[in-house]
Amino acid sequence: MQKRLWTLIERGFQAERLHQNETLFTIGNGYLGVRGTFEEGYPGATPATLIHGIYDHVPSMQIPELVNAPNWLPIAIMVDGTPFTLRFDRHDSLNPPHGALLGYERALLLDRAVLHRSALFRAASGSIVRLTFDRFASLADEHIMAQRVTITAVAGEPVIAVAYSIDADTTNDGVSHWAPDVRTSQALGTIGVERRTAQSGYGVAVTSCVSDPHAVRAAGDALRPALTSVLRLDPTGSAVFDKFSALYTSRDLADPLDAAENAVRQAAAAGYDALLQAHTAAWAKSWAASDIRIEGDDECQLALRLTAYHVLIAAPRHDENVSIGAKTLSGLGYKGHVFWDVELFMLPPLTLTQPEVARNLLMYRYHRLAGARHKAQANGCEGAMFPWESTDTGEETTPQWSDPQPDGSRIRIWTGDREQHISTDIAYAVWQFWRWTGDDDWFRRCGAELLLDTAVFWGSRVEEKNGRYEISQQIGPDEYHENVDNSVFVNRMVVWHLQTALRGLDWLAEQSPDDHARLTTSLDLSAKRLARWRDIIARMFIPFDEAKQIHIQFPGFFDMEYIPVPHYLPRTHSVQAILGHARSIQSQVIKQADVVMLMALLGESLAPRSVLLNNWDTYFPRCDHGSSLSPAMHAWAAARLGLTEIAYDQFHHAVHIDLHDNKGNSRDGIHAAACGGVWQAVVFGFVGLHIDANGDLAFQPALPTHWKRVSFSVNYRGTQRTITVENPA
Amino acid sequence: MQKRLWTLIERGFQAERLHQNETLFTIGNGYLGVRGTFEEGYPGATPATLIHGIYDHVPSMQIPELVNAPNWLPIAIMVDGTPFTLRFDRHDSLNPPHGALLGYERALLLDRAVLHRSALFRAASGSIVRLTFDRFASLADEHIMAQRVTITAVAGEPVIAVAYSIDADTTNDGVSHWAPDVRTSQALGTIGVERRTAQSGYGVAVTSCVSDPHAVRAAGDALRPALTSVLRLDPTGSAVFDKFSALYTSRDLADPLDAAENAVRQAAAAGYDALLQAHTAAWAKSWAASDIRIEGDDECQLALRLTAYHVLIAAPRHDENVSIGAKTLSGLGYKGHVFWDVELFMLPPLTLTQPEVARNLLMYRYHRLAGARHKAQANGCEGAMFPWESTDTGEETTPQWSDPQPDGSRIRIWTGDREQHISTDIAYAVWQFWRWTGDDDWFRRCGAELLLDTAVFWGSRVEEKNGRYEISQQIGPDEYHENVDNSVFVNRMVVWHLQTALRGLDWLAEQSPDDHARLTTSLDLSAKRLARWRDIIARMFIPFDEAKQIHIQFPGFFDMEYIPVPHYLPRTHSVQAILGHARSIQSQVIKQADVVMLMALLGESLAPRSVLLNNWDTYFPRCDHGSSLSPAMHAWAAARLGLTEIAYDQFHHAVHIDLHDNKGNSRDGIHAAACGGVWQAVVFGFVGLHIDANGDLAFQPALPTHWKRVSFSVNYRGTQRTITVENPA
Repeated sequence: MQKRLWTLIERGFQAERLHQNETLFTIGNGYLGVRGTFEEGYPGATPATLIHGIYDHVPSMQIPELVNAPNWLPIAIMVDGTPFTLRFDRHDSLNPPHGALLGYERALLLDRAVLHRSALFRAASGSIVRLTFDRFASLADEHIMAQRVTITAVAGEPVIAVAYSIDADTTNDGVSHWAPDVRTSQALGTIGVERRTAQSGYGVAVTSCVSDPHAVRAAGDALRPALTSVLRLDPTGSAVFDKFSALYTSRDLADPLDAAENAVRQAAAAGYDALLQAHTAAWAKSWAASDIRIEGDDECQLALRLTAYHVLIAAPRHDENVSIGAKTLSGLGYKGHVFWDVELFMLPPLTLTQPEVARNLLMYRYHRLAGARHKAQANGCEGAMFPWESTDTGEETTPQWSDPQPDGSRIRIWTGDREQHISTDIAYAVWQFWRWTGDDDWFRRCGAELLLDTAVFWGSRVEEKNGRYEISQQIGPDEYHENVDNSVFVNRMVVWHLQTALRGLDWLAEQSPDDHARLTTSLDLSAKRLARWRDIIARMFIPFDEAKQIHIQFPGFFDMEYIPVPHYLPRTHSVQAILGHARSIQSQVIKQADVVMLMALLGESLAPRSVLLNNWDTYFPRCDHGSSLSPAMHAWAAARLGLTEIAYDQFHHAVHIDLHDNKGNSRDGIHAAACGGVWQAVVFGFVGLHIDANGDLAFQPALPTHWKRVSFSVNYRGTQRTITVENPA
Repeated sequence: MQKRLWTLIERGFQAERLHQNETLFTIGNGYLGVRGTFEEGYPGATPATLIHGIYDHVPSMQIPELVNAPNWLPIAIMVDGTPFTLRFDRHDSLNPPHGALLGYERALLLDRAVLHRSALFRAASGSIVRLTFDRFASLADEHIMAQRVTITAVAGEPVIAVAYSIDADTTNDGVSHWAPDVRTSQALGTIGVERRTAQSGYGVAVTSCVSDPHAVRAAGDALRPALTSVLRLDPTGSAVFDKFSALYTSRDLADPLDAAENAVRQAAAAGYDALLQAHTAAWAKSWAASDIRIEGDDECQLALRLTAYHVLIAAPRHDENVSIGAKTLSGLGYKGHVFWDVELFMLPPLTLTQPEVARNLLMYRYHRLAGARHKAQANGCEGAMFPWESTDTGEETTPQWSDPQPDGSRIRIWTGDREQHISTDIAYAVWQFWRWTGDDDWFRRCGAELLLDTAVFWGSRVEEKNGRYEISQQIGPDEYHENVDNSVFVNRMVVWHLQTALRGLDWLAEQSPDDHARLTTSLDLSAKRLARWRDIIARMFIPFDEAKQIHIQFPGFFDMEYIPVPHYLPRTHSVQAILGHARSIQSQVIKQADVVMLMALLGESLAPRSVLLNNWDTYFPRCDHGSSLSPAMHAWAAARLGLTEIAYDQFHHAVHIDLHDNKGNSRDGIHAAACGGVWQAVVFGFVGLHIDANGDLAFQPALPTHWKRVSFSVNYRGTQRTITVENPA
């Protein structure tokens, strides 16, 4: 293993990238995520521990959001009475009255999901210490977190005072989600606190204990329980300080504080090394399934691993009732809400490499069919209409209005009403999961119902008019154009959806007549309904320009102002930001892959290659990639068209979206869809992996010319298959 | 060619790295160097055009320095009356009253030494333009520089006003080196100015003309002559603005202004494309000789090319009377003075790949033998004693005192008096040049005199006492320890020097009796003198600990305080800076490779491998690498000892010294010795290239395990030989 291709390094403390690095250096284990803030704190830091499924909706907000849990990280250290902090950096004098940071390095070890930091620090007394910090959230036991601090006397015999604490007074950017009552741990040698979310009533308990036998409970605040200890280091001596924490919620069991008390005691008894070993072994398994190795492109290799890491630390391993927010658990952006980003971006890598995890994410939707049916009903439709933004309840939680703009106005947000393709995106993920895993049992029990009831929704939603079927007032992937009639993406995917639903139903009839009967009854899959589906498939309006041999994003698209997007290079803003909302929505500027996304998803089943090339030439120069979801899909589609150089440019951009902060908002959390998208750009795009007509795995490689070799594994119908593709030498 | 491994990119304007990037993005052609400042200027920018050999010594300074020449870069652009500037970045509003920078990228194309920049800019009027800037200093004609600005209307029909100017009112950090009189060009369509250095009296003339037929001379200042023009762009139209400049000095010919006027007119007549083509062809040749290709380490590949680039743009192609300052021509650090950095760091790559350039640098020393003899005489010695810091005159120009410290005191600088190994470093370079080129003619005409007269110096300098020969009061490479007696580096290298001088003399006697006779007479190489050399060789004191089987850096070294340097990791400061000057000079902390440097230079001719390993184990943990010269030499020595992992760590650090600003002072200019050192770490260290006993090329590869292949060319005795070393798969 080449460590340098598995390690994200910050050399010297970069205060100007504080928040971006908090996001990048997030750790997690699929149960919770913890931003890379510092044990000792830092001015303006935005610490967050986010737990899947713990949402709360306070009266001051339009919508619920993931709750910032009690912070288990704090370890305050004094060296001869001088507080250790990175603030003592960048002073002119190396010998200031208050201490000095003499050295710093931070490394995220991707192979084992351990965050490591080391610092050299001089106290005001003149003593110099080296401090190293390690932390991880165990993948072997998702309720357990461990921290290790090692302090070594480099000069002097410093007195070290350590205060380990929990901060239970956390907020989401100033908004508190906690009910006022606090339960605290009375267990010996342990600190702990349980809080309850104010509206949703979830209990969240965090406990900590330490390896240090001399630590004593500090007098103090119920919201900030602490243990403290003091020791003197011998010359060149060192001391190790371990802090163990446990976190349970009332989603796990009835008394999370009690469970966390027991768990943290057991963790401390096992010790740091044993916990780390179990954690590392679990990660070795996870990477063995999910790593992509690229030879000939170190830069993208490391960046690609970082994107895979961020999907893996966010993917729930043991929970069928949570899914992954657009920013994973690495930041408060999009409030932890679940979008199509899961089904069409993050799920495919999991479906193909860790199907048991992918199944959890699909089950999240299955268990929320009630919410989807509720939404359909409220919209005068039948079947299941999934919410554009989803949380714990399964109800639509998209805000209706934007935050106030600079002029005080709010913009109406239509996606919750009109971005209805989410239901088809879920169906696509169900179908992909079934084809790749061959998990017939799951399909007949759960998958089929998702596929079919969303088809029922579309059958009721489609409008028969003008001698054909149409769908009005939609938002396709290109969100710059809202409430359009006959989005080609939507209409064509609905055709695919209904065709696929009929295929699934045929299979059930043949292979699983009981389930066929059950679903036919429960979903009312009458002969009349199925006949209508077939009629929709036959007569759906697919906007297409016969003269130009291109798909039309929606009728009227080309009547709007043409703005040559490539002229706006180089740019660090979207063209929409440059031209303003009002003008760009009335122009042909596209936010993200839309027709191109349809090409990626359906390939040559959409149209012959010549049409796909025409589409590319039409839509690529109109897209400003205002969404981080866009470049990876362009990379995939371009690679399939043999436009390898453009594909690589798009891939390079996509894989560095957070590393280079290409969108300028990495501080709010990882762009998780881009992370899943780049996996697909490699596997489906450059390698061209697919299941052929005989049900065998097949490839059509079109690697970037400088790549020597790409190698990865997929799990195909229960068997791990390693795939290696090489460029000719 | 993989462009990504040949391009240094700045994505988005990084104001916080303004000065570091000015250094990194320097262009040059071996005649002059130009920092990467912007055509339109920027607050706090430090523009510099530095020309080899143009030194000046003003009364307010202790020493002479390279003079900051008139700035030929300025091109000011107004878009609908709004000045284009990068200052209009980072504003909250995208639509401020004064314009906005909407995009930015900068790329240094290493393969052709062209600096490219593009920007998207909105004027206050709302017009949007894309601007691209290219510049190069021609390698085909070293007096010619060219700039091309292309402005494209992206939105609107903007009026573009361009002012091309020369700023002849330049200073070195506020210190003016110019005499008050100014000569200006009266030639039609050309602006130009000649200034004269106040003390040294060099004339420096810069002229510019433009491709724009509508440009008119602006009224104005003799010190800032300008041409201006105005045009309106059609919608989506673009315009190209070429500016050609020429620079001559009175070192080149008697009337530099006249020459520059003629040259710039010819350049303009040839046109930008033709100039670029000739320039690019010249660079292709240069890289064909000097590029090292590493497969399996993209990061170091790019970094290594950047280091090679900075040596190549600074190496004089057509001038025997200049050499390369410690910071090349990329910054004012070390005032452009020439140190041993040339002979032991930068020269070897040139000697082995572009010997005709290396010869120029050795001739610089040859033509300064008078200064070296003058210094020897002043020090009561015979022969040639080269100055520690050298400029145009060849006299010692090391300052005697530091700049004032925070407490107002000044520290005495002893290197000019006591760092005498420079004379042997030059001899080493002469010998290496002769062995690799087989240029007997040059050796007999020039090289031998350098080798022998510096040997004469040492023969007179060495002290016979205590029944042996000693050398007192020296500074070895480890400059933390000044004025030590019997530095093992110095004593042992002097032995090598005298041995080598005798070998050279024997060769002359046999192959070139006339030159032997000439030099025997002119340098007084009497039998008595040669007998003394042999006696010194036999009886020189080489400090060595027989019990520990290690070389002793100097007697008494191990009596000083031991400070375990590795304990001070991670650190962003030298241990000397951490502990303070007073304490560290009385400790065993070493500034840089000293005994280890001796090991690199002499290899197993110094001692058996077991002793070299003992030395490594002793001195490596005592070195704080306070000098940028250190890590590359450690990489070389470690690689030879088979310590491949440590060698790679040291190499990685060395090759990124300026890219990562590892020393915190890249703003002052490139660390050129490190640039030359990393070449040697690869070629002499990892590849183990050497000339064997039969005079054949031989290798002892010890590549970093993740390197797949290293490939480069050397010129061995007039024939280009391509060498490829692979790691076992």
